[in-house]
Amino acid sequence: MIYLDNAATTSPKPQKVIRAVTNALVYLSANPGRSGHSTSENAAIVMYETRNKVAKLFNAPNAEGVIFTPNCTASINYVLKGLLKRGDRIVTSSLEHNAVIRPLTALKKYGIGFDVFEVDIDNSETTFKNFLNTVGNDTRMVICTHASNVTGTLLPIKKIGAYCKEKGILFAVDAAQSAGVIPIDMKEMGIDYLCVAAHKGLYAPMGTGLLIMSGPTPATIIEGGTGTESANLNQPIDLPEKYESGTVNLPGIAGIRAGIDFINEKGIDRIRNHEIKLIKLAYNRLSKISGIRLYSSQYDDKAPLLSFNLNGMNSIQVANELNRHSVAVRAGLHCAPFAHKRLGTIDCGTVRISPSAFTSEADIIKTTEYVANIASKSKAIF
Amino acid sequence: MIYLDNAATTSPKPQKVIRAVTNALVYLSANPGRSGHSTSENAAIVMYETRNKVAKLFNAPNAEGVIFTPNCTASINYVLKGLLKRGDRIVTSSLEHNAVIRPLTALKKYGIGFDVFEVDIDNSETTFKNFLNTVGNDTRMVICTHASNVTGTLLPIKKIGAYCKEKGILFAVDAAQSAGVIPIDMKEMGIDYLCVAAHKGLYAPMGTGLLIMSGPTPATIIEGGTGTESANLNQPIDLPEKYESGTVNLPGIAGIRAGIDFINEKGIDRIRNHEIKLIKLAYNRLSKISGIRLYSSQYDDKAPLLSFNLNGMNSIQVANELNRHSVAVRAGLHCAPFAHKRLGTIDCGTVRISPSAFTSEADIIKTTEYVANIASKSKAIF
Repeated sequence: MIYLDNAATTSPKPQKVIRAVTNALVYLSANPGRSGHSTSENAAIVMYETRNKVAKLFNAPNAEGVIFTPNCTASINYVLKGLLKRGDRIVTSSLEHNAVIRPLTALKKYGIGFDVFEVDIDNSETTFKNFLNTVGNDTRMVICTHASNVTGTLLPIKKIGAYCKEKGILFAVDAAQSAGVIPIDMKEMGIDYLCVAAHKGLYAPMGTGLLIMSGPTPATIIEGGTGTESANLNQPIDLPEKYESGTVNLPGIAGIRAGIDFINEKGIDRIRNHEIKLIKLAYNRLSKISGIRLYSSQYDDKAPLLSFNLNGMNSIQVANELNRHSVAVRAGLHCAPFAHKRLGTIDCGTVRISPSAFTSEADIIKTTEYVANIASKSKAIF
Repeated sequence: MIYLDNAATTSPKPQKVIRAVTNALVYLSANPGRSGHSTSENAAIVMYETRNKVAKLFNAPNAEGVIFTPNCTASINYVLKGLLKRGDRIVTSSLEHNAVIRPLTALKKYGIGFDVFEVDIDNSETTFKNFLNTVGNDTRMVICTHASNVTGTLLPIKKIGAYCKEKGILFAVDAAQSAGVIPIDMKEMGIDYLCVAAHKGLYAPMGTGLLIMSGPTPATIIEGGTGTESANLNQPIDLPEKYESGTVNLPGIAGIRAGIDFINEKGIDRIRNHEIKLIKLAYNRLSKISGIRLYSSQYDDKAPLLSFNLNGMNSIQVANELNRHSVAVRAGLHCAPFAHKRLGTIDCGTVRISPSAFTSEADIIKTTEYVANIASKSKAIF
């Protein structure tokens, strides 16, 4: 199996992640810090160390602001619903995932509105101008993706962050596609809330997300036992406990720690250069196929993924054909309807290729050969 | 290490659970059903099969109503916040965990109030009378624990369920301590919403919860990508997708499936009889120690756990002493302040012993010997 669906979740997971998860299951099945015994304390140490590693990786102001969540979607919901109030206006981009758009749509019934700025896939300057034309004096928060999960386009996060800091606007970033692949410095980029899918670029198991906060602390949308202040019927206000009610996913957290070790050892830059090289190789080979349409530009400055379509075929047909050759890609809308409206692919979706640190040149060469083959056969049919 | 903190999370996990989680990490790292390739389809099959097993175990009306959540606390929050509206009144018990009490307290600011009925630890009839005296014509929902995590007391769920059905009151049950240990039949017990900590009695990894619904579907508190209806900016209303936004914890779900297989093979009744036998053994041996106070009754009809204190010692001191003998127990308030107010232990907490299918008589005998030893030494000091 050639797995090129790493933008959904990375696979394979590094051996050290698998070992860490298994070890946690065997040796650390205990509620971290909530019981008076050594296993519980050891579990708490894993959480503490993982928070520190996460804070360091993203240059967060402190480890207490690192919250373990079930996934990036939950992180985004915690931020939006914990901070926004009736009458607030939000600004977001035209390349957002449903993880952002659906909570924003749900918030409309509370009188919370959002405005969308158009991302120019080929020109970051134009994107920033569009942002400036959309943001207003009444904007309370900007939330946008760091990198599109359809085209790989990077948004001008640093400039948006600087603008938000200057104007006192809260700034939240959906880093589902970038964390672990593209360096993120929360302080330098002016990010108040960073939402991370740890099972993607951090190579942790599925079911792991992070919310890293440096801004005002949101209200909770989930309350419960925290193992702290048990006699208090109100949710404790201390970080990180405030947002971690109930039993945490300790095997997953141990997996995050091991995943960060993996990318630190390999080097984020080295991983990214490898993946960008593979995407360029794919781009060059695919662009020679007649009847193909590529939706991503060829620039370096993007997340390592690529979307395409073959003339006369639905993206799902193409993915099914590739699956018959044991190549795993993602087809359809990738939960990002705005992006597909922009690309004119809302009906057919796109085929997405996304490599990881484990993908080889041979994987890409074989895959592009299969695509060429499918294209030539499809022409015979249509 | 003698691990007697199974009411927090079961440990060890069965070998088949560890294998299932590891296998999922190695072979099923793919977004279930959301991509057009075999790994994704295989992941979807695991989810489908697990839902079916869960539905069967609890006699839920259908598998679509089985929702995978991060933990039991999240399940409870989904129910309360998705269903309750301004002006609603809720009835709950005096033995609730903070997983119930803290969300209910948080809901007060929306004009949602709750009344508490007193649980008689020794008399289920009195408990039910107290319930009837508390519930009113304006009660919209009853939510209560199936079994206390402090005393093991079982609530008269079936009678409460029948009453709620008759009166058209929604009925939600926190089965954190009972699911997998005490048979639960949602239909027979009239349960509309069953909240389960799969990492406890179902022997799944930490970070796994279940919400099983047969009542009206709650509004969502988390929205995002579901892999379905991607062009729809509103959250899809179909079950189970409506409540499973973002990437799920697939290794955990594979662990739930293996955990259910484990308890089905062993037999819930056999596991429970074994654990109750151990608790009786502990009770009989501990009750002979001078200066001990036991907070649970000796009846069969309870969840297999037991709370005690030693004269003149804080529960945390006792747990620390036991930890020095490599015995893991939980001390403190166990996130259940109401129960401790009732027991008069809000200041000192209790020491809790909770066995699992893996606990042996020898474990209990050794532990009670250590407790006797600690008690005799403490008398020398105080």
